Amino acid sequence: MKIRVGIYGYGNLGRGVECAIMNNNDMELKAVFTRREPEHVEILSKSVPVYKTEEAISMEKDIDVMILCGGSATDLPKQTPMLAKYFNVVDSFDTHAKIPEHLAAVSDRALVGRKTAVISVGWDPGMFSLNRIYSTAVLPVGDTYTFWGKGVSQGHSDAIRRIDGVIDAKQYTIPKQEALDAVRSGSSPDLSTRQKHMRECYVIASDHADLAAIENDIITMPNYFADYDTIVHFITQEELDANHSGIPHGGFVIRTGRTGEKLENNHRIEYSLSLDSNPEFTAGVLVAYARAAVRMNRAGKKGGYTPFDIAPIDLLVEGREEVIKKYL
Amino acid sequence: MKIRVGIYGYGNLGRGVECAIMNNNDMELKAVFTRREPEHVEILSKSVPVYKTEEAISMEKDIDVMILCGGSATDLPKQTPMLAKYFNVVDSFDTHAKIPEHLAAVSDRALVGRKTAVISVGWDPGMFSLNRIYSTAVLPVGDTYTFWGKGVSQGHSDAIRRIDGVIDAKQYTIPKQEALDAVRSGSSPDLSTRQKHMRECYVIASDHADLAAIENDIITMPNYFADYDTIVHFITQEELDANHSGIPHGGFVIRTGRTGEKLENNHRIEYSLSLDSNPEFTAGVLVAYARAAVRMNRAGKKGGYTPFDIAPIDLLVEGREEVIKKYL
Repeated sequence: MKIRVGIYGYGNLGRGVECAIMNNNDMELKAVFTRREPEHVEILSKSVPVYKTEEAISMEKDIDVMILCGGSATDLPKQTPMLAKYFNVVDSFDTHAKIPEHLAAVSDRALVGRKTAVISVGWDPGMFSLNRIYSTAVLPVGDTYTFWGKGVSQGHSDAIRRIDGVIDAKQYTIPKQEALDAVRSGSSPDLSTRQKHMRECYVIASDHADLAAIENDIITMPNYFADYDTIVHFITQEELDANHSGIPHGGFVIRTGRTGEKLENNHRIEYSLSLDSNPEFTAGVLVAYARAAVRMNRAGKKGGYTPFDIAPIDLLVEGREEVIKKYL
Repeated sequence: MKIRVGIYGYGNLGRGVECAIMNNNDMELKAVFTRREPEHVEILSKSVPVYKTEEAISMEKDIDVMILCGGSATDLPKQTPMLAKYFNVVDSFDTHAKIPEHLAAVSDRALVGRKTAVISVGWDPGMFSLNRIYSTAVLPVGDTYTFWGKGVSQGHSDAIRRIDGVIDAKQYTIPKQEALDAVRSGSSPDLSTRQKHMRECYVIASDHADLAAIENDIITMPNYFADYDTIVHFITQEELDANHSGIPHGGFVIRTGRTGEKLENNHRIEYSLSLDSNPEFTAGVLVAYARAAVRMNRAGKKGGYTPFDIAPIDLLVEGREEVIKKYL
């Protein structure tokens, strides 16, 4: 019997999860839950029902795992604990500083409902975090660096859009090549924020807007841009649509470390992602951990977990013997 | 109390494990076991005793985990099952085709002794295998490629040394740049053995040896070289010592995959290693999994395991809360 999946929230990420389920033949999409009016939400899977989020709990018996596709700022802190009492759940909570608090809240509720909850699943937190701990474990003397990009930062794009005279904008975070090279050399450099990444912005301004003022507002914006080298390009709607309509992302986790009696040998572990679609890749990770959540629950592992707590074997469709034979 | 580690077999790998233990402050080396005469084996840790392998079992109560540092051809198939009844054990068994059989033998014996055994720990099998399954799990539609090198192949170096007129030799396996580029492009190429790697050999021939004959013997050698583009350089002992005395290795695991309603988005996951010392890096992985073996045994998880079966959290010195806070 296939794993019956629910999607809670249907934006880019929810749609990505829907696509990912199509490519995992042990899963089926059972229902989509939305805060919008269901009749106004068109999903790809025509035969799958769309319900209001308020109806979710009535489907407790019909859904093996609920994948939460809301945002970390306001949605997930409420939704994941709420649903964890009724469903095995997986979310992509990515506010790094609040993960312990979120995990505690989710764990408590999952234990009450005897369910399994996996939080902070995606690529960072997620695959990047896994690479940070594997590489630290095997090379305990060393330094780890994470670089993000080249990719679109939704938060930074939004910040630009709030400036007077800006119609639309897209911001790319770009690792600096010199920084990557310095890290790869094994020299363990101390890198400032400005040295690690730069920011490139494509902006559509309204007619008669003061472009110099907009550019200045961007590059001096505290927290978002002031600490970075920022390049601003003013472009047309046509150029934005033609060249900047995607949501690519990616990045690098690099650990350099030393071994030997006198630490005389250098090693480098590098993990990188190059993603055409940030939400669709995140969705792929969510779906794999949704499988793990169901398996763990059946094996009696209830409560709250992170990707760190989960044996990789639980992520795969195939059984253990086959996985060992094919991939080890 | 520190984890008390035994090293069983003291060659390059055993020495690497000894160094790795020095860099993991929750561990102490308790004893080294050797088939040689202990008084002829000089180890780095002057205060640690060296015993004959036959004495190992008498130390059942003094060692929390035994790290096996023998070879996969003849040592480990006997040693790991034998010792798994008495100790938590970790080995780097790397004969891919025989892993299921080895795992079964080790598991049986570990269960008899209520011990925990982890096999096939290193970088391939090991870290590379983990990357193969994580990347397949999150991108189920796609192709995975493994490249080895640039690095020294001990087996191929040995094969050259067996040729008449050869005094010493070092063979490097080198991934072909065109193949790496083709894979990274996402075109999912079918690559022959010859297209993926080349082999470069540095050979010291005896005086008056027939160099052309040696070169021909190398490049036509079945299984080892005949299916590859092979380059042979004749060099002096001085050149070998100066430029080829290390045991570097490394390689790449690359998965390209597609997502989206019509599989229209491409993604690439790349994991790479660049290692000055193959045995010392392998040792670092063994030591991390030795920690996991001890923890799992204390948690009641007995029997035989592979890296696939082990949650990454168990590899780290720090406790779960700290790991989540620092790395997730």
